[in-house]
Amino acid sequence: MTTQVFGHKSPDTDSTGSPIIWAWYLTHIRGEAATPVLLGEPNTEAAFMLSHWNLDKPEIIGDVAEGAPVFIVDTNNPAELPASINKADIRGIIDHHKLVGGLETKGPIEIRMEPLACTATIMHKIIGDDLSQAPRGIKGAMLTCILSDTLEFRSPTTTDEDKAIALSLATELGIDIATFAAEMFAAKSDVSSFSDAELLRMDSKEYTVDGKEFRVSVLETTAPKIVLDRKDSLMASMVDVAAEDGADQVLLFVVDILNEEATLLVPNDLVKTVAEKSFGVIVTGDTVVLPGVMSRKKQIIPFLKV
Amino acid sequence: MTTQVFGHKSPDTDSTGSPIIWAWYLTHIRGEAATPVLLGEPNTEAAFMLSHWNLDKPEIIGDVAEGAPVFIVDTNNPAELPASINKADIRGIIDHHKLVGGLETKGPIEIRMEPLACTATIMHKIIGDDLSQAPRGIKGAMLTCILSDTLEFRSPTTTDEDKAIALSLATELGIDIATFAAEMFAAKSDVSSFSDAELLRMDSKEYTVDGKEFRVSVLETTAPKIVLDRKDSLMASMVDVAAEDGADQVLLFVVDILNEEATLLVPNDLVKTVAEKSFGVIVTGDTVVLPGVMSRKKQIIPFLKV
Repeated sequence: MTTQVFGHKSPDTDSTGSPIIWAWYLTHIRGEAATPVLLGEPNTEAAFMLSHWNLDKPEIIGDVAEGAPVFIVDTNNPAELPASINKADIRGIIDHHKLVGGLETKGPIEIRMEPLACTATIMHKIIGDDLSQAPRGIKGAMLTCILSDTLEFRSPTTTDEDKAIALSLATELGIDIATFAAEMFAAKSDVSSFSDAELLRMDSKEYTVDGKEFRVSVLETTAPKIVLDRKDSLMASMVDVAAEDGADQVLLFVVDILNEEATLLVPNDLVKTVAEKSFGVIVTGDTVVLPGVMSRKKQIIPFLKV
Repeated sequence: MTTQVFGHKSPDTDSTGSPIIWAWYLTHIRGEAATPVLLGEPNTEAAFMLSHWNLDKPEIIGDVAEGAPVFIVDTNNPAELPASINKADIRGIIDHHKLVGGLETKGPIEIRMEPLACTATIMHKIIGDDLSQAPRGIKGAMLTCILSDTLEFRSPTTTDEDKAIALSLATELGIDIATFAAEMFAAKSDVSSFSDAELLRMDSKEYTVDGKEFRVSVLETTAPKIVLDRKDSLMASMVDVAAEDGADQVLLFVVDILNEEATLLVPNDLVKTVAEKSFGVIVTGDTVVLPGVMSRKKQIIPFLKV
């Protein structure tokens, strides 16, 4: 039975590319039939990766069947996975996020988590010399995932290992990183076709802080003005999105990749309090700039206070 | 701040030796101060290991302090860990058991789980060439852990990797495996100083099966008669142990290491039903022999039915 390999819902570049990389490795190196699948439509940067490296777009699935073999990458959070995940036969997990708890397996499995910027970096370490057998598209997906998750090495999540592996892949592939990353970020910044609600949910994770449920959304872009020009309708849409998703509040951080700062939308006093308590800023209008903030994992979530 | 490295409560050989191995590695190879600790008195085989390899007995601790750095080995089950484990700063987990869920971390950490027989085998793989710098006692602890968890390669949990690593360690250390394992198992089989309740809790894990809570206890021994001669008082003690520990029933499997079989004590109709439904045997008395059964993980837990 073919193992389905997938990342999290609302797949970004790492959750689209890492399943492709790992399914290749399982099938061609370990000799275990595997296929990548997606838990939703890939974002615009992930779509660019597929197109640039001539990779087939994986099938999008809804739920998983009881007993079906699956391999989870880029998350260990049941809330970001199919509803029946704990009924599937989870064969392994590769991830670089905090341990959330909630996944259970019937027997011992392979789990590899490391505090690196990108799932693909961990895979590069596991695959080792066997990567020489990989087609160009697999190596290209690895490079794209690392540049995406590190925001071209700007994010504080970037480790020496992420950077060294990306540089060696770029050299081997004959890719100029600055040029290629600019294309990637331009693709990610093209949000014109998305509704406000889609933007708020695109790269979004739920966290409970002091009893309040927050949907913490991040939009990484090289063109923040395009998003911020829509701030009034985005703030109006937050009310509906929060209600529909059972959250108390959406927090939208618009990350300016090139200027290395985030702008937080401040629609009400709750978010004003969160901003001031969490980031030590004074809020005067309906947005506040947070200099240097680029990583939800490292610079936002650990500091959230109500 | 020194990182405390520990395994599970009621420490067996792997949960005593692996913290010693990993604290050595963290301190001497990674340059991070670490110390092994225990969550209870080591069993008789683990005590033999400490004595044979001239290893200091680690300090026994009760709970962990909020924010204290800890590294967990040989379990990922909060029920087998200090009460305040999720308030500690969990730095990493190395384990070879099924994923239970329940541990949470504030940020991404190092987690390495593999379906191998022994935690020390995973550590051997991670440590790699740096093991050449380890003192004899660290290598001896590794060998002892692997021989213990594999029951000298008899357990079906044994993998080629466990065996190959144990053989290479034995060669390097000049140890005759058959002789050494016989000493280990003799130490493990010396249960004369333990009360019935202590025996029932010594190597015991709780599992819920169809709504019933079982404390599944295993006693691995080369002298099953010594234990089975105490079966009446052991069965009487089961009632108290189950009540005190909030379980519905204790299941005691006496594993005969040399004859490669387990004897299950059958004190009542519930256990009779469990035995017949789970293992396809007919129970006529107050014990039943399960030929070939040596591993709780592989041959008991996955089959338990009520």
